[in-house]
Amino acid sequence: MGVELIPVVGLPEIAPGDDLAAMIAEALDLRDGDIVVVTSKIVSKAEGRIIDLGDVSPSPFAEDWASRWEKDPRVVEVVLAESRRIVRQIGPVLITETRHGLVCANSGVDQSSSGAHDRVVVLPEDPDASARRIRDGLRSATGHDVAVIVSDTFGRPWREGQTDVAIGIAGMRPLRSYIGEVDPHGHEFRVQELCVADELASAAELVKGNTSRVPVAVVRGFEHEIDDEATMAPVIRDAERDLFR
Amino acid sequence: MGVELIPVVGLPEIAPGDDLAAMIAEALDLRDGDIVVVTSKIVSKAEGRIIDLGDVSPSPFAEDWASRWEKDPRVVEVVLAESRRIVRQIGPVLITETRHGLVCANSGVDQSSSGAHDRVVVLPEDPDASARRIRDGLRSATGHDVAVIVSDTFGRPWREGQTDVAIGIAGMRPLRSYIGEVDPHGHEFRVQELCVADELASAAELVKGNTSRVPVAVVRGFEHEIDDEATMAPVIRDAERDLFR
Repeated sequence: MGVELIPVVGLPEIAPGDDLAAMIAEALDLRDGDIVVVTSKIVSKAEGRIIDLGDVSPSPFAEDWASRWEKDPRVVEVVLAESRRIVRQIGPVLITETRHGLVCANSGVDQSSSGAHDRVVVLPEDPDASARRIRDGLRSATGHDVAVIVSDTFGRPWREGQTDVAIGIAGMRPLRSYIGEVDPHGHEFRVQELCVADELASAAELVKGNTSRVPVAVVRGFEHEIDDEATMAPVIRDAERDLFR
Repeated sequence: MGVELIPVVGLPEIAPGDDLAAMIAEALDLRDGDIVVVTSKIVSKAEGRIIDLGDVSPSPFAEDWASRWEKDPRVVEVVLAESRRIVRQIGPVLITETRHGLVCANSGVDQSSSGAHDRVVVLPEDPDASARRIRDGLRSATGHDVAVIVSDTFGRPWREGQTDVAIGIAGMRPLRSYIGEVDPHGHEFRVQELCVADELASAAELVKGNTSRVPVAVVRGFEHEIDDEATMAPVIRDAERDLFR
């Protein structure tokens, strides 16, 4: 009946070119129906999404804003390059819409985990494709059919504290719809569509821990249908439907 | 090592005056350190937070807007009465800031689960106090020290699909701070503060299900410190710190 959240411990520090699926398959005995949640940071590292700041030439816009807020202009330049639109630029805060349509601080560019002061880690180029590759790799390595979520940690309006959300998915749909269903009294449910992908990412964070070097967790026992075509696209709200962009 | 998500099954339909803590204690053997996540709807029902629409006199403002969007003016009046500010009013959508400081659609007023067409369920008056009462009741009934979260299902900007968040808490702090901690390379973590309360609410939703009549779930095995004074107040962002209000 219940669901288990299982941290995947013992993974080494990830480097460009590492075969994440093989490493995860070795670290834990997976089962059919497991949902493997992988922190985007190690996906980026395995995919070599690491930028050497020495190679970055900041634009005058990046230089100007960086100097005003005591930021590294090269990092600001990377943040801008990773974005397709600035959603808010207020004081030292830069909320952007990434090329994937994700709205988050600094385009998800991560200075903290690059392993060196002159490098930054950027989000995977196509997190759905990353999830698909890891899923295929896990199937090859274990023979088991699992779903994969690539997660990241985002802030949100109105509420303090960040939470983990899904930025890439493979093997299951991210949304569960109740549209058209009615309760025993004949009312439509107030809840029409749940983003289970984000709930799974948040659940997994509880055993991963952002700072504890457990970048992968498995959610076991959550009922879901297999969908080989699923992506995060249905979760990215169209700008014209959005009241806060 | 892992965390378990356990649905609490077999609870009857809740009515005003019901002793939720006693009913939960009877339905599942709790343990010290469990986190009991309770859907706000049944908290509201037990607390009698049900409004008979026959008693509601809509204002001209509510009448006007309701007729423009084919809504029940009495429900609109309740939504306005439950709010302290309208954050967005675009087309038929009404995003409000509730008296608790929560930003959500329609002040959390729920027409679907009232058991009758002429009644609505509104959020608990003080969800932290509700959580505290349930926690105290569970301690009395079981002798165990648990934390309690009152959860609701909210939409959010930028992303389709709703997720469960915490609106009331007792026994543990809602935020886990990493401020000042550094990674093995000496960088501060990009993630500074996680809203574990929301992550726990989301995790619990995975086994509750909004439509399956499982309004309570237990999170077992999540390490946390007991805090008898905790409330959701630190999660409610001050308006002046908020870029989207």
